[in-house]
Amino acid sequence: MQYNDALKSIFNELKDWEDLGSMADYIPELAKVNPNKFGIYLSCINGESFTYGDTQEKFSLQSVAKVFSLSLAYSIEGARLWDRVGVEPSGNSFNSLWQLEYENGIPRNPFINSGALVVCDVLCSILDNPKADFLQFVRKIAGNPNLNFNPAVAKSEQETGHRNHALVDFMKSYGNIENPTEKVLDFYFNLCSLEMTCEALAKSFLIFANGGKTVEDNLQLLSSVRIKRVNAIMQTCGFYDEAGEFAFRVGLPGKSGVGGGIAAIHPGHYAVAVWSPRLNDKGNSSKGMKALEMLTTKLELSIF
Amino acid sequence: MQYNDALKSIFNELKDWEDLGSMADYIPELAKVNPNKFGIYLSCINGESFTYGDTQEKFSLQSVAKVFSLSLAYSIEGARLWDRVGVEPSGNSFNSLWQLEYENGIPRNPFINSGALVVCDVLCSILDNPKADFLQFVRKIAGNPNLNFNPAVAKSEQETGHRNHALVDFMKSYGNIENPTEKVLDFYFNLCSLEMTCEALAKSFLIFANGGKTVEDNLQLLSSVRIKRVNAIMQTCGFYDEAGEFAFRVGLPGKSGVGGGIAAIHPGHYAVAVWSPRLNDKGNSSKGMKALEMLTTKLELSIF
Amino acid sequence: MQYNDALKSIFNELKDWEDLGSMADYIPELAKVNPNKFGIYLSCINGESFTYGDTQEKFSLQSVAKVFSLSLAYSIEGARLWDRVGVEPSGNSFNSLWQLEYENGIPRNPFINSGALVVCDVLCSILDNPKADFLQFVRKIAGNPNLNFNPAVAKSEQETGHRNHALVDFMKSYGNIENPTEKVLDFYFNLCSLEMTCEALAKSFLIFANGGKTVEDNLQLLSSVRIKRVNAIMQTCGFYDEAGEFAFRVGLPGKSGVGGGIAAIHPGHYAVAVWSPRLNDKGNSSKGMKALEMLTTKLELSIF
Amino acid sequence: MQYNDALKSIFNELKDWEDLGSMADYIPELAKVNPNKFGIYLSCINGESFTYGDTQEKFSLQSVAKVFSLSLAYSIEGARLWDRVGVEPSGNSFNSLWQLEYENGIPRNPFINSGALVVCDVLCSILDNPKADFLQFVRKIAGNPNLNFNPAVAKSEQETGHRNHALVDFMKSYGNIENPTEKVLDFYFNLCSLEMTCEALAKSFLIFANGGKTVEDNLQLLSSVRIKRVNAIMQTCGFYDEAGEFAFRVGLPGKSGVGGGIAAIHPGHYAVAVWSPRLNDKGNSSKGMKALEMLTTKLELSIF
Repeated sequence: MQYNDALKSIFNELKDWEDLGSMADYIPELAKVNPNKFGIYLSCINGESFTYGDTQEKFSLQSVAKVFSLSLAYSIEGARLWDRVGVEPSGNSFNSLWQLEYENGIPRNPFINSGALVVCDVLCSILDNPKADFLQFVRKIAGNPNLNFNPAVAKSEQETGHRNHALVDFMKSYGNIENPTEKVLDFYFNLCSLEMTCEALAKSFLIFANGGKTVEDNLQLLSSVRIKRVNAIMQTCGFYDEAGEFAFRVGLPGKSGVGGGIAAIHPGHYAVAVWSPRLNDKGNSSKGMKALEMLTTKLELSIF
Repeated sequence: MQYNDALKSIFNELKDWEDLGSMADYIPELAKVNPNKFGIYLSCINGESFTYGDTQEKFSLQSVAKVFSLSLAYSIEGARLWDRVGVEPSGNSFNSLWQLEYENGIPRNPFINSGALVVCDVLCSILDNPKADFLQFVRKIAGNPNLNFNPAVAKSEQETGHRNHALVDFMKSYGNIENPTEKVLDFYFNLCSLEMTCEALAKSFLIFANGGKTVEDNLQLLSSVRIKRVNAIMQTCGFYDEAGEFAFRVGLPGKSGVGGGIAAIHPGHYAVAVWSPRLNDKGNSSKGMKALEMLTTKLELSIF
Repeated sequence: MQYNDALKSIFNELKDWEDLGSMADYIPELAKVNPNKFGIYLSCINGESFTYGDTQEKFSLQSVAKVFSLSLAYSIEGARLWDRVGVEPSGNSFNSLWQLEYENGIPRNPFINSGALVVCDVLCSILDNPKADFLQFVRKIAGNPNLNFNPAVAKSEQETGHRNHALVDFMKSYGNIENPTEKVLDFYFNLCSLEMTCEALAKSFLIFANGGKTVEDNLQLLSSVRIKRVNAIMQTCGFYDEAGEFAFRVGLPGKSGVGGGIAAIHPGHYAVAVWSPRLNDKGNSSKGMKALEMLTTKLELSIF
Repeated sequence: MQYNDALKSIFNELKDWEDLGSMADYIPELAKVNPNKFGIYLSCINGESFTYGDTQEKFSLQSVAKVFSLSLAYSIEGARLWDRVGVEPSGNSFNSLWQLEYENGIPRNPFINSGALVVCDVLCSILDNPKADFLQFVRKIAGNPNLNFNPAVAKSEQETGHRNHALVDFMKSYGNIENPTEKVLDFYFNLCSLEMTCEALAKSFLIFANGGKTVEDNLQLLSSVRIKRVNAIMQTCGFYDEAGEFAFRVGLPGKSGVGGGIAAIHPGHYAVAVWSPRLNDKGNSSKGMKALEMLTTKLELSIF
């Protein structure tokens, strides 16, 4: 089946699908979003794109944005980054302190909260203006000068972020955080508050499907080897404790966020972004997971 | 770089590489193997094949064989299989009872010991002659009537298999084992004792690179959808607590065993088998991991 | 308040107390017991004794009997015993494999299942006829030739004892079990099936209140130093994951069993046995706990 | 043996005993103490007292002081306190976040760090001037107006207290901390910095041996029932992951601190304080443990 036919049929089947998921309510600002929003946008590396539903409305990227912070830190630090954070699936819920204690303050991977916080600490150490420099990086790879943080969401997370506070202090006790706790958290909460439409998200992920080159200008912004490695981490660690399920059912590298967004890529072919705010009990968009499973089934094409 | 050039250069670089890994010594029969053996065999779906080193000598597949038992059980049971075993990475060492207790006797995936034992139990329930029927299945997908268990190895494992005994009894206490403990273990230890040469192993994995069809006769022995799912499980769970590292460094679905063998596939392209008995501290062949990392680097081609 | 007044008032208050606990139903034979049985028997080292309720009916000691097996093993092995089992509270449910794995097959204490199984293994190694010799020992310290195992209960446990099977095999994988699994389990299930009336149980525990001497003949059957240490272990480990609660509310060394019995002692004063089959969610007799709490409150006397 | 003879012989045997323990070095200010200090002071409820060694030099109470904060909080809050902290041994190292996560932010007991922090939070909520009011309480039960915090030690702990910071924030994420993190920690670090001589410490613990009454004036400052319960918690939880060992070898309720002090009591008889800064691998004074074991052995008298 062709891309457009596949997306059209997915959208029609799912738009009235009864979604038993519930909103992320621990961040008050996110709980205000209309839970019935649903959009899917697919952008090919040949320039074509396909859109259905609410793809022009901004939503909060949350953990999806951790792919960008990882990419930036990795592009500057190189392999030294892996002294401070691993690349293994966590096998536990995304906030767990267990394994962090068992493994002496080295987070299992850069997508669980602790690992993303270490990446933020790394960026706080190497960037002059972490928030501004990071935003500039994202705008560049997305080819989109209008991307921004949402200060209300960042503030909302700050006020309920005791557990992330605990994670930073805990890792500091192992010597794996260099900057002041508040500075790391301020960067982290802003990172999570990054907003995009489905269209912008799909386009910003094209670089991961295209070996590190921008599609428009063919500029090599990230090295091809590192792009593959970031994709591999997305595949094994991108969906909290459901990474195996996503590989099994969808078969693409991707990353989800509690704002209900998921971005995924088929290397050499396309990037796709889907948004639906209701989450399953593992914290991933339930309709989004379903849509992407239908996509690779209908296209009869995954990386496996 | 072409396949032959890549393999040749890998073989020459690694044959004198100082390997600090050590043999699996908890199975006495395996400890007798010459630790310096090293072979690599790559078999393309177009019929070409390339061989360097000790590729005509049989070795013990051990956990690599769990890909075959999973494939057989899945082909008969279908999705019901996932009621009894998950598809998530374990995030712990391959013998761990922790998560099994935490998750009420349902193993995280079919490649950790507990999960492989559940798969054996499933096969004991549905096959008339589990060992013979299984052997026939492997011979068929491998296109090789000469494959066999190694009774000395099976017996050697039986005598030191207290922990696997414990796993079966433990899962029985949760109602997730149907057959007598001894029957399940006898099948399991025979499964692990399956022997192949690198050549036979690469050829038996071609079906996973070829969407479930045999390369010789183009017969659809396993469904294309299920092959993709088995590949996905290999990707996220195939290397004990180093699955993320293998995805990160190699970027192919694969499976390792403590006999020092690794089989991996690039869907649509090839299957490759490598054998070197010294293991790293995660239980994977250290030279084998290195060889496959060099392979995808030299070919500049992985699934990511 | 005097002993008799205290017991009388406790019995009257509690005999119609609505007990929300439930029976141990995982051992079919135990589930047949009348759940409303209730008896309490207090035996002083000066020879006096006091009895209320169902104190002449036999019940299954279950884990209470582990005090006897520990005492016998300790009296023969001495301090060497602590190389194979610890004396620390477990901080987990009584069946947990977690800490056993974390601590390399050395159970935390002799009263959790794993620790009691190690003690059984020790006795299997040093006794000619483990079951008969053990029974003789218990009869001697109890001054009661009529004590016996209950074969129907032992058999009932054997048939559902997969988890204990797993524990033995698991510890065997660490080298902490010497005898055949079936032999250790046979002894263990018989030990647990030991039956006594409240009167017999209180009298058999007098030796722990009397520094190791029998009350009738003043014979030093166990050394005074070791009696104190067994009492200390009862205090810190005698009530599964409720040992702290029992110390806090009752303030006496004691041991409970899932048959609904509890034995406790006030060193230098008395031994007391209570029986009521309904268990709280930690596996201890709920009315028994309550009765003993009222006892030390009314007597205004505990070891603290 | 009489008290004086016992102490004299213990002191002489141990003063040249080769102590392989090491100082607590994670608090810089504590690492400055002379590691060879050794003193023991025993104070009877009949007014007699016995002293050997360095009993007139102040040292840092550290966790020993948690007995006082618990006593004050319990005397004001009563049984409500147990909604926020348990009374069970932890079965893990004293800093562990594991069980805290497993049990939803309710610490296992008031002596592990997390539990002591909750008690500090309770006192911050109910006292007008937490530090001053607490100091007044300790001076009163100790009958000693000269007791004080050590600001240099408190400051030293504050600067390295990332893990305690993490614990407070983590419990705040479960709603089990009411006050600002910094306020709770400031109180906690001052509490731990409380200084006493062996003599002062033994005298301040007399009230726990005397049913809540002061020995000098016979004033009932704490209720007899609550004193027993605090004693019970000391018995089951007072020595980190060595509480069972202390009950087993010493047989008295007590509490240790990383400053090298231990206080213990024999209800109805005496309180004893010992100080020796070298710690064993569980964080308890190694010579102190040894001295108290010899004490109850020589006196042939413990609570068991």
